[in-house]
Amino acid sequence: MGIINENFMLYNNCAKELYHNFAAPLPIIDYHCHLDPGKIADNHKFKNAYEIFLNGDHYKWRQMRSGGIAEEKITGTADDFEKWMAFAEILPYLIGNPLYHWTAMELKQYFDINEPLCHDSAKSIWDACNTQLTEKNLTTQSLIKESNVEIICTTDDPADTLEHHIKLQKEDFCAKVFPTFRPDKAIEIGNEAFSSYISSCGINSYDALLSWLSARITFFNANGCKLSDHALSYVPFALGDAKSVFEKKMNGGALSQNEIDVFKTAILGHCAALYARFGWAMQLHIGALRNNNTKMFYSLGADTGFDSINDLPVAENLSALMDHLETEDILPKTILYTLNPKDNYVLGTMLGNFQKSPTLSKIQFGSAWWFNDNRDGMEAHLKALANLGMLGGFIGMLTDSRSFVSFSRHDYFRRIFCNLIGDWVEKGEYPKDIKTLKKIVEGVCYYNAKNYFSFN
Amino acid sequence: MGIINENFMLYNNCAKELYHNFAAPLPIIDYHCHLDPGKIADNHKFKNAYEIFLNGDHYKWRQMRSGGIAEEKITGTADDFEKWMAFAEILPYLIGNPLYHWTAMELKQYFDINEPLCHDSAKSIWDACNTQLTEKNLTTQSLIKESNVEIICTTDDPADTLEHHIKLQKEDFCAKVFPTFRPDKAIEIGNEAFSSYISSCGINSYDALLSWLSARITFFNANGCKLSDHALSYVPFALGDAKSVFEKKMNGGALSQNEIDVFKTAILGHCAALYARFGWAMQLHIGALRNNNTKMFYSLGADTGFDSINDLPVAENLSALMDHLETEDILPKTILYTLNPKDNYVLGTMLGNFQKSPTLSKIQFGSAWWFNDNRDGMEAHLKALANLGMLGGFIGMLTDSRSFVSFSRHDYFRRIFCNLIGDWVEKGEYPKDIKTLKKIVEGVCYYNAKNYFSFN
Amino acid sequence: MGIINENFMLYNNCAKELYHNFAAPLPIIDYHCHLDPGKIADNHKFKNAYEIFLNGDHYKWRQMRSGGIAEEKITGTADDFEKWMAFAEILPYLIGNPLYHWTAMELKQYFDINEPLCHDSAKSIWDACNTQLTEKNLTTQSLIKESNVEIICTTDDPADTLEHHIKLQKEDFCAKVFPTFRPDKAIEIGNEAFSSYISSCGINSYDALLSWLSARITFFNANGCKLSDHALSYVPFALGDAKSVFEKKMNGGALSQNEIDVFKTAILGHCAALYARFGWAMQLHIGALRNNNTKMFYSLGADTGFDSINDLPVAENLSALMDHLETEDILPKTILYTLNPKDNYVLGTMLGNFQKSPTLSKIQFGSAWWFNDNRDGMEAHLKALANLGMLGGFIGMLTDSRSFVSFSRHDYFRRIFCNLIGDWVEKGEYPKDIKTLKKIVEGVCYYNAKNYFSFN
Repeated sequence: MGIINENFMLYNNCAKELYHNFAAPLPIIDYHCHLDPGKIADNHKFKNAYEIFLNGDHYKWRQMRSGGIAEEKITGTADDFEKWMAFAEILPYLIGNPLYHWTAMELKQYFDINEPLCHDSAKSIWDACNTQLTEKNLTTQSLIKESNVEIICTTDDPADTLEHHIKLQKEDFCAKVFPTFRPDKAIEIGNEAFSSYISSCGINSYDALLSWLSARITFFNANGCKLSDHALSYVPFALGDAKSVFEKKMNGGALSQNEIDVFKTAILGHCAALYARFGWAMQLHIGALRNNNTKMFYSLGADTGFDSINDLPVAENLSALMDHLETEDILPKTILYTLNPKDNYVLGTMLGNFQKSPTLSKIQFGSAWWFNDNRDGMEAHLKALANLGMLGGFIGMLTDSRSFVSFSRHDYFRRIFCNLIGDWVEKGEYPKDIKTLKKIVEGVCYYNAKNYFSFN
Repeated sequence: MGIINENFMLYNNCAKELYHNFAAPLPIIDYHCHLDPGKIADNHKFKNAYEIFLNGDHYKWRQMRSGGIAEEKITGTADDFEKWMAFAEILPYLIGNPLYHWTAMELKQYFDINEPLCHDSAKSIWDACNTQLTEKNLTTQSLIKESNVEIICTTDDPADTLEHHIKLQKEDFCAKVFPTFRPDKAIEIGNEAFSSYISSCGINSYDALLSWLSARITFFNANGCKLSDHALSYVPFALGDAKSVFEKKMNGGALSQNEIDVFKTAILGHCAALYARFGWAMQLHIGALRNNNTKMFYSLGADTGFDSINDLPVAENLSALMDHLETEDILPKTILYTLNPKDNYVLGTMLGNFQKSPTLSKIQFGSAWWFNDNRDGMEAHLKALANLGMLGGFIGMLTDSRSFVSFSRHDYFRRIFCNLIGDWVEKGEYPKDIKTLKKIVEGVCYYNAKNYFSFN
Repeated sequence: MGIINENFMLYNNCAKELYHNFAAPLPIIDYHCHLDPGKIADNHKFKNAYEIFLNGDHYKWRQMRSGGIAEEKITGTADDFEKWMAFAEILPYLIGNPLYHWTAMELKQYFDINEPLCHDSAKSIWDACNTQLTEKNLTTQSLIKESNVEIICTTDDPADTLEHHIKLQKEDFCAKVFPTFRPDKAIEIGNEAFSSYISSCGINSYDALLSWLSARITFFNANGCKLSDHALSYVPFALGDAKSVFEKKMNGGALSQNEIDVFKTAILGHCAALYARFGWAMQLHIGALRNNNTKMFYSLGADTGFDSINDLPVAENLSALMDHLETEDILPKTILYTLNPKDNYVLGTMLGNFQKSPTLSKIQFGSAWWFNDNRDGMEAHLKALANLGMLGGFIGMLTDSRSFVSFSRHDYFRRIFCNLIGDWVEKGEYPKDIKTLKKIVEGVCYYNAKNYFSFN
């Protein structure tokens, strides 16, 4: 009675052929996630089903709140089993939500449990998972290995020592674990925490900040980093005297929006030049509106399920920013992600303005992200990319996740992708040329990312 | 040859089962509409097919104008039969428009006529309807009864005496008719008519306005009111001295946008605190751009078919407004509606920021509204809600209508809803667990609204 | 193994019947394109497959850049065959892109070649096309004739002599070739080139500009012009002293955004009054963000594949602009196009505010345009129009193209349109009333445009 079987999400014969023969066997390159490198390096062992499925997973917390569950049973003092039961209770009402599919896929893949999780089955699934956790000795590394993961790129602060990455590189762990350079704290000059971050890094001038960023990028690069990541609630663009803005801020002055944008543009440009030199890809994650609930922010902090989607115009500033970098010859490989699906067509066409030989699809339209990481969101993204650009050049899926069982989302993507193009083939809109289709499927699911990031 | 049959809009077996066994038999809770309570209290009898189908229905007027019909035959001096013929003439060209479906459903449900309305059939359908209107003595109350309506919430000005609601409550009419508190005229300080409205209510100071609103909310509450409603062309948010703004306005001063927003925010906050105290739900209808055609506005007034969709950003202000109310502990149950489908994902994620135990889905993503009240609009809304939140907690459909035959839109919704989730089940994306599906269908179509609004 | 056959894109029986019996045989009215009238008048002969398929086609150039092709093989010094090979190389990776379908349709329709173009087939297709170009003596006029084109409206600057149109009118060429009045250069006062354009037209005052525009509109009208066209990156609206703005600009002053909008609004109004008087239709193409890549703009100029989609709000200004014209009684027939599909519902409802007897659908929602000219874009447009307005009154497809083989896009549209409404019929959402469906299909594919523009 469970929903997971070999043809889950595959609704035509071509899709089944493409998925089973070509997509399914490929290793996983998870080039953007939020896994804790310390937990990988320490080969962390999970205590129980709560820890592996719910702990730290704000996607699920959020839906538990929609289900009317008291905070105590979500992030509060209730015990792990009570929290598990509360989640099981509301899961059936998440009909059509990706969490319903993900949970089913995760239980099947990692625990061979196909019974739907709900109130009635919750206790027996709890017991079964916990037994297996012990018997199979499931750890972060065993989950990564079992998931056929070849490369993981974590997300790291510039100030990070990368000690865990360095430790892992010295071991013979089957997967490579690379850092990603995410300098948001050094860019978000409008945030309260900016000054203290800058001070804590020992930076006392604008020039020192630039030098420090350069040094950290160089250090990250030496440790296998191939990507940066920038979270942009909106797209800033303004040219001006960033040094003065920095000094004003550090002297306690209040900044105008324009001053903030001048600073952000300058720092992005400084970093971009180095990314370009090192052949990195720059990820721009555009459009999250974070920490909307002040009370809960003070109570639980960030990344606890109180984020949503912003909707400011992005086209003119994004064009100006990229054009500025291209004019300066410092536009790196760039991956544009939007959290707001209204912008799929804006981003999908923006790519085309800056594509450049010899890279295949130098500017990428990043995978459907966060709130769009579901069948409808992925299909909308893939269709936009197909209609507006070159789907065959797409570097494919990533998890963006904090969860060690979320690798099954690559499988989810592969099924949805194969289903989409298989449908076109079955309808006669693309030739049933298996040789070419194989190249496309293997490219999107694995090789394009491998080549794009020069992982080798 | 008519399109209405028992499986209209139901395209899979599970959908048929869910609809016929669970959805169809349920009573209707029409928790937001614009029916005239006076016409219900008076048990108004309809003169002819024109009056029941076209009179006051600006959705249809609008499409008659698209069809090139002269205004005379829409709102002008042509006789009822000429207007009926003009509508019948253009209806076939409304292929794919919900009016085509609605008209067919209404003719079938209330008159058992399944012949498509068009030029050739118009006269015979006119005659048949008029005969039945007389023979079956169709009245507002008989239509409500025949439609299996249990609860109707009308939309009412704070100054309303609620005499009709009070009269109806004293009778043993099968349906409950409750008022809804819609204080737009007391909030829209930027409108020409504001000052005269305030004066006409005998209000002579800001504090008097607050007291008056409190008194009216209390009065509405005593008469069964469970909801408020606010029409927001855009989402205002600004904190400041609302009292000064009010005084400036009443003294004939010109207000800045910021001053307007300060006032709106303050009044919304004042009302919200009372809604929260009384356990009401606050409806925010966001994004209508009204009265776009000045000439026709001066000729016909508001609500005559010259409205459309606004497209200003909503995320940041909506977040700030709700966060402000939540911080003040006065955020009531809230239903967010958007007229612009580009905002489905913005609203669908905004919900999650403010969900709170013990209410099941305290913040609701309101049903596809007005220009979205069609199959595509409903599916887009339902999928957005499913992907982003808890579809199983949704309080479902309402008509938002001025028409006494529009209850069939609940049936339209139920079919579309069952078709959507039935499709997921048939594809294997959700278990064929009829017990749970029954609970979901009955919840969304009836019980969730009943519980959410505490109708009992 | 090619994808083109008689039922390409037709997935239900009703669609096949409607397409083959009614849509396919109709002549083509291509009421908006960018074909070079000189090339038609000269009956230009094509040198080789490169010239007919790739030369000047920035849609294809753009995707070649996505495919990592060096600029040399796109717009550079590589020879025609190398460029052809480069395009063939990347085409298979454009799976799901309209270029894949268009290329297949064009090769089939004009060269009876159904083999998919790819690396392996590129040389033989090159040879076959080139042989046929010679043997069949394919020219611009023969392609137009073979395509069953009845009317072509080119896009022309007000200063144009229309010599080619005049020449063609004197010949007995089977298709009518009319000019379209596109005065962007006289309106875009914010552009660098504005002053020199004005001077080059011998205009030395604001009044002279108005007179000149009036004279040119009259001249265009005398030569069969029935449409104007305006490219609007955003929708301007501001009332004020346009004369002063003009004088400031011509005296080298820097203009504010408001001043620019005052001028644009005034000139649009001046032209609109004349359009209305002559019974023309005014096309507003809203939302292109052009020439995003400064380096490539300086290297290759405009219309070379570096354009994308803007995303500013449009509703309030568009409403104000149209209301202003309607209030002044100078609102002509108007066709609203959006490049940003997020605005489909905004434009689709804006129409309804200004529909007016006796014209059938006086305000039109223009066909899915440029980046939306694909199956998904067309379906989204057609569904929006159907849900919000009167699909049966739609004036249908145009190519907007610079390519003489792009007439097959009318066939693409007709198939997609018939498939959509056929699907509704097969599902039972519209009666299988072939007489009415024939009228709808023939209207949308041919007669509505013919009547709307008074081509006769």
